[in-house]
Amino acid sequence: MQIHHISHTLSDTLRHRRQKLAQLIDFPVILWSGSSSPRNFRANTYPFRASSHFLYFAGLPLHNAAIRLEAGKLELFIDDPEPGSALWHGEMPKREEIAAKIGADTARTLSELKHRGHGAASIPVQNYRTSLVQSQILHREISSPYDLEGLDLELAKAIVSLRLTHDGEALAELRQAAAVSVAAHKAGMVATPKAKQEAEVRAAMEGVIIAQNMTTSYNSIVTVHGEVLHNEAYHHPLQPGDLLLADVGAETEMGWAADITRTWPVSGKFSPTQRDIYNVVLAAHDACIATIRPGVEYRDIHLLAATVIAEGLVDLGIFQGNPQDLVELDAHALFFPHGIGHLLGLDVHDMEDLGDLAGYEDDRTRSDRFGLSYLRLNRPLSPGMLVTIEPGFYQVPAILNDPQNRAKYQNIINWERLSQFADVRGIRIEDDVLVTTNGSEILTAALPNDADTIEALVNNLDEEAGG
Amino acid sequence: MQIHHISHTLSDTLRHRRQKLAQLIDFPVILWSGSSSPRNFRANTYPFRASSHFLYFAGLPLHNAAIRLEAGKLELFIDDPEPGSALWHGEMPKREEIAAKIGADTARTLSELKHRGHGAASIPVQNYRTSLVQSQILHREISSPYDLEGLDLELAKAIVSLRLTHDGEALAELRQAAAVSVAAHKAGMVATPKAKQEAEVRAAMEGVIIAQNMTTSYNSIVTVHGEVLHNEAYHHPLQPGDLLLADVGAETEMGWAADITRTWPVSGKFSPTQRDIYNVVLAAHDACIATIRPGVEYRDIHLLAATVIAEGLVDLGIFQGNPQDLVELDAHALFFPHGIGHLLGLDVHDMEDLGDLAGYEDDRTRSDRFGLSYLRLNRPLSPGMLVTIEPGFYQVPAILNDPQNRAKYQNIINWERLSQFADVRGIRIEDDVLVTTNGSEILTAALPNDADTIEALVNNLDEEAGG
Repeated sequence: MQIHHISHTLSDTLRHRRQKLAQLIDFPVILWSGSSSPRNFRANTYPFRASSHFLYFAGLPLHNAAIRLEAGKLELFIDDPEPGSALWHGEMPKREEIAAKIGADTARTLSELKHRGHGAASIPVQNYRTSLVQSQILHREISSPYDLEGLDLELAKAIVSLRLTHDGEALAELRQAAAVSVAAHKAGMVATPKAKQEAEVRAAMEGVIIAQNMTTSYNSIVTVHGEVLHNEAYHHPLQPGDLLLADVGAETEMGWAADITRTWPVSGKFSPTQRDIYNVVLAAHDACIATIRPGVEYRDIHLLAATVIAEGLVDLGIFQGNPQDLVELDAHALFFPHGIGHLLGLDVHDMEDLGDLAGYEDDRTRSDRFGLSYLRLNRPLSPGMLVTIEPGFYQVPAILNDPQNRAKYQNIINWERLSQFADVRGIRIEDDVLVTTNGSEILTAALPNDADTIEALVNNLDEEAGG
Repeated sequence: MQIHHISHTLSDTLRHRRQKLAQLIDFPVILWSGSSSPRNFRANTYPFRASSHFLYFAGLPLHNAAIRLEAGKLELFIDDPEPGSALWHGEMPKREEIAAKIGADTARTLSELKHRGHGAASIPVQNYRTSLVQSQILHREISSPYDLEGLDLELAKAIVSLRLTHDGEALAELRQAAAVSVAAHKAGMVATPKAKQEAEVRAAMEGVIIAQNMTTSYNSIVTVHGEVLHNEAYHHPLQPGDLLLADVGAETEMGWAADITRTWPVSGKFSPTQRDIYNVVLAAHDACIATIRPGVEYRDIHLLAATVIAEGLVDLGIFQGNPQDLVELDAHALFFPHGIGHLLGLDVHDMEDLGDLAGYEDDRTRSDRFGLSYLRLNRPLSPGMLVTIEPGFYQVPAILNDPQNRAKYQNIINWERLSQFADVRGIRIEDDVLVTTNGSEILTAALPNDADTIEALVNNLDEEAGG
């Protein structure tokens, strides 16, 4: 655990967060950080990631720690490093130092937590070993954060209401993550002409993130097969006619995430068909962002993207019909089969560990419509919310070759015209957008997204190239 | 899961491995690959790492798969991709295709494993969810691989006897991992002059590994505080007088590891004191490797390193006394407090999931001597074994300031002389050495380790620079 570059306002921020929590609930809360997960043997672990709910109130990525919150007070529970650990891990900060940094009211050993669990609410962590401890301390079964009940559910709702909008400390972190991710994407574009396979571009991008002492906030997608939405393969060769889709984001040491996608031509030049579709996706992207302001329903932004894409495809002769009608028939989802975006914060899909509790307003549930079911966020926007806007166009064989789709949409798609766009397998343009009091601010605006500037970056003609 | 670059000999190799296993045990075996571990929410996982024992007999990093081995036969249990998964993950290989690639005799769904567990031995995996499945299928508690009993212990011993020495397919993979790690270290040296903090050098090194579509086989150590043995911080600034210690290794897609350490001067020039100590460590390194041949006890190689280091420190006036006596007093461990190395294979500490079962010959246990207790390998060497040789010198405050050590070794250390070496906090030189029929082969020999060439690389004067 490293403590450095800590803002002196951290303890103030944390105090403010727990005071707000205390206004919402009147029972004690215990949150655990979790511990490392073994990779192939016990001493060889995955990089530690503290639970996001813990991070929100404790501020630091502490291993094997817990905090107890009650009436605005913060108690820290963590063991001092074992004797001998200094040999392997160096001098680590002592409990009292950590407590001072985060403004804890008291600091105790983990064993002192043993009798403090009665009546406390908590959120189950992802780490199994820690969830056993949670059950033991709380004297009840702790299982999945997807089906919380009672006090735990009340706690989760209170945390959601806090984490839905970001305070100054969070925004400072989120801006850092965005800036490093912007630099990573520029480096990826610049590296493309000399790269022979996807992995080399990924390396250039992740190298920027690692060099800033950050991690990726999710497993990068860097692929010439953008039509495979969760592609985690990087072995394909880069060929001149290919589009490269890169969905890569950084996460700060304190856990705050960015999430950016750009799509660029391997050759440094979009083909006319690629450029046509790219501009349709960009039009949807721009229209959505122009619409963002407090009170707007995120679902309507999704439907706006669908409509703009449908319009664009009508203009290109791929769709036949009226755009509004096409969206009502879910025709857009043939080419845009995911949601327009999601919440962003400590998690890249913020608070998705709680299922749809954060993403969906009370009493709203997922639609079963093909064109809406993947929507991860269905709330009215409010100032301080950070969302992604990420329209896309994909030719997914599993969708386009599906006999039911073929039948249902046979009079809507001009298949012959579509076949002329075979060199467009997948395009996505994704930015991170903060809802402000009177509109929005694009945190990732420093990364160009118009086709000409993208081409210039890939061709290393842009002065900023390389970030 | 990606299947490519598969050697056509893979199925032959796997058949040979399971036939050798069948010569050692006469009961059925089920091995599970494991599944992904969640990071901060279920869909955001750590990169999947299949269980090494599974990989050894199944050859491919399959998610959620199991194999059943009996009398040389291989049964594969894996579910075909769910309908709809093609949208997110693309077309994945079908069960029958995978079975053909690995030479499985039969291929079934996972549910068909349900009634096949009675009387079978297994090794517990690291992934908790999978270990629950193991208990269920085997009809008994499956917990830790550290305290195996009965058939499981017999199986573990049989697997150890196979995995202790490497066949041709394994060696081909290990050589690839070594080559990419060599290139990574060269890139790290070359990147040092322009780097401002450790993280930037780490980025240059891991970038080479990522670009080759490999992963790191363990969390990299790239630090100016080499005296912190398991340092995973990368935020320290690089300053002209610092030595940078980099312990970074690649792992192939099939899971085979490399493990290399080099130590270089940030300025491109060792100070006289740094060079003196560096040459002591290098002398130990070279003496150990010169000794490696079948039949030699690895423990004796460790003690040889200790003796050469003690001699060197006597010559430099840091130690007073006879080197042999100093080693018997464990004085070497004041500056070299770890073992000379370990087994290397599918795991960077190969088979360490089984505790000391692989590292220690039957009936041998860890010494409680300060100078021997950290030794991870205590066996006679045999052809086909791959070991690391990694002597080091560290000034660990927790050791050198320990009052007991101060008292015990007060007449042995010339503290005033030692204080002249304050700019040597930590040095380690580590290579991967294959035991051959009549000696050894250094798989990482392409990476220079003499002080002059290291300096040339850092100064970008070496023609090979940049790998």
